[in-house]
Amino acid sequence: MDLSAEEVRRVCTTALLRAGVPDAYARLQVDLLLEAELRGRPSHGVLRLARIVERIRNQVTNPSTTGEHIWEGQALLAVDGQAGLGPVVACAALDAIEERARSTGIAIAAISNNNHLGMMAWYAERTASRGSTLLALSTSEALVHAWGGRRAMVGTNPIAIGVPAVPRPFVIDMATSLVSMGQIHDHARRDEAIPPSWALDRDGNPTSDPHAARDGAIAPFGEAKGYALGLAFEILVASLTASAIGRDVRGTLDATEICNKGDVFIVIHASASGAMARGIGAYLDAIRADIPADGFRSVAIPGDRSRSVREARLRDGVPVTDAVWTEIVALAEA
Amino acid sequence: MDLSAEEVRRVCTTALLRAGVPDAYARLQVDLLLEAELRGRPSHGVLRLARIVERIRNQVTNPSTTGEHIWEGQALLAVDGQAGLGPVVACAALDAIEERARSTGIAIAAISNNNHLGMMAWYAERTASRGSTLLALSTSEALVHAWGGRRAMVGTNPIAIGVPAVPRPFVIDMATSLVSMGQIHDHARRDEAIPPSWALDRDGNPTSDPHAARDGAIAPFGEAKGYALGLAFEILVASLTASAIGRDVRGTLDATEICNKGDVFIVIHASASGAMARGIGAYLDAIRADIPADGFRSVAIPGDRSRSVREARLRDGVPVTDAVWTEIVALAEA
Repeated sequence: MDLSAEEVRRVCTTALLRAGVPDAYARLQVDLLLEAELRGRPSHGVLRLARIVERIRNQVTNPSTTGEHIWEGQALLAVDGQAGLGPVVACAALDAIEERARSTGIAIAAISNNNHLGMMAWYAERTASRGSTLLALSTSEALVHAWGGRRAMVGTNPIAIGVPAVPRPFVIDMATSLVSMGQIHDHARRDEAIPPSWALDRDGNPTSDPHAARDGAIAPFGEAKGYALGLAFEILVASLTASAIGRDVRGTLDATEICNKGDVFIVIHASASGAMARGIGAYLDAIRADIPADGFRSVAIPGDRSRSVREARLRDGVPVTDAVWTEIVALAEA
Repeated sequence: MDLSAEEVRRVCTTALLRAGVPDAYARLQVDLLLEAELRGRPSHGVLRLARIVERIRNQVTNPSTTGEHIWEGQALLAVDGQAGLGPVVACAALDAIEERARSTGIAIAAISNNNHLGMMAWYAERTASRGSTLLALSTSEALVHAWGGRRAMVGTNPIAIGVPAVPRPFVIDMATSLVSMGQIHDHARRDEAIPPSWALDRDGNPTSDPHAARDGAIAPFGEAKGYALGLAFEILVASLTASAIGRDVRGTLDATEICNKGDVFIVIHASASGAMARGIGAYLDAIRADIPADGFRSVAIPGDRSRSVREARLRDGVPVTDAVWTEIVALAEA
């Protein structure tokens, strides 16, 4: 069914309020879920709401905290998320390091004990629209196999980057897995075969069966190089945040375990960036003006397509599956 | 021919001394070139020496400078490389931000007007073996086409990451192009076809002809995601360093133009990293212990293979093509 963004926002917010989430934090959490739906990223959208509520009920999420901040040196903020809502803890940390970076030039938040951040592009745009650059990393449960391996050993480990530019921030947000587990689940629901390059089964053999892939491991994107990158992000985040690593990570896919992954935000406030913003916009336009290769309608800049989807969905409504919506409505009326 | 590392070092250093490079800087520059040869990365090795000398003679490289440092805030070092030797300017910048990060927690060097850094893994290992984490980026001439495009618009834009770990630092160093232009040149020299996925010709069509590819554009690694990443690095570096962007970049492949690309080094000194170093080593061993997929002898961690190559070459000598060696010997006797 297609619902207006306002309706989705209203019902989801009510569900969180009923679960005991403070008003402002409920609205922020819904901002993240709704923005993902608007941009066509359902795996980070409202299908996560039920689990968020369940985790609060199971006391593995504390919806009232913004986390504890300890400065190690002037520019490194160690954050104990205290099992707070991902976006709530993240925004409190980002606000602190954005302010600090205005004097130090760069600042980092190393966050442990925090819940799922949601779609990281949201944070990258927010920081970049305020004139600073953001580099964000987060880890997840081990879902990705090593290149040349069989077993899930690495998280889907996304990276988001936001850079000030005219007329809008330049943002990328991408997992280092080839596809998301959400895409595999989606194929399983529709009993539709997956390409054998996407995933391995539980014995570590390539499979076209999405049901078998769900118990196996997803391929890294970009083969050996992408594997190296996802692994580096796993290690970098664990090292800086003293969070769990590899197969020890829990809490972004279940409703019962404390979330022990890590998040790293690096904000850079360089005087050069203001002067460069216009030139970056011109460069991106030059790329868009390139003649497309066979099979492509145009050359896209990251973010172009999700921006179109967003405009369309603000106008025409957001598609939400009946099962997910029924569940959310029930939570709002609980 | 195979030469001992000592012989390569001796003759290359002499060549640089004869070109007017101060003694310590000549040794540092050769460190970078030799380390690339030892690890089987010839594109960043001694074949670059002749151009380095030519650039000094053409006065587009000043071998005597370590660059000019201006602190913007306590943790952001803006460096004007003053056309110095890549490694010389880079090490002066790294030393400064590594020291600063010990008190601020994180520090960044944004470097413009610097020459080619060489193999970035060298810097990542150096910083990580000293107990800090390094994230390094650098741009290059536009050699890579957009995913879905035809024209070279993006640099090969490598990323290097180094994290303290036991028994040795964890390091990745990878370009965001699918292959290097060096690999394409190498196939051209041997008149050997390249896979059509590697590159486009000058009209932007896939080609198996390495000669045609040399005038065209290399594919990004990892298709749309890798393109997004390489593009993000292009923009991030240009934004922070106020350096040239896209097709305006010069100076890493020619002998006559000032090098106007940018380099960014981020050093992080987090108390958590010391405690995590052992656990990271154990995690990497767990990945190595995974059963390899069909067609793989073992599961490798980034750096494992180049370490083996290095041990072998220290023992058996470094292969250098006759043409390159003849040129270097001539420069040493000039």
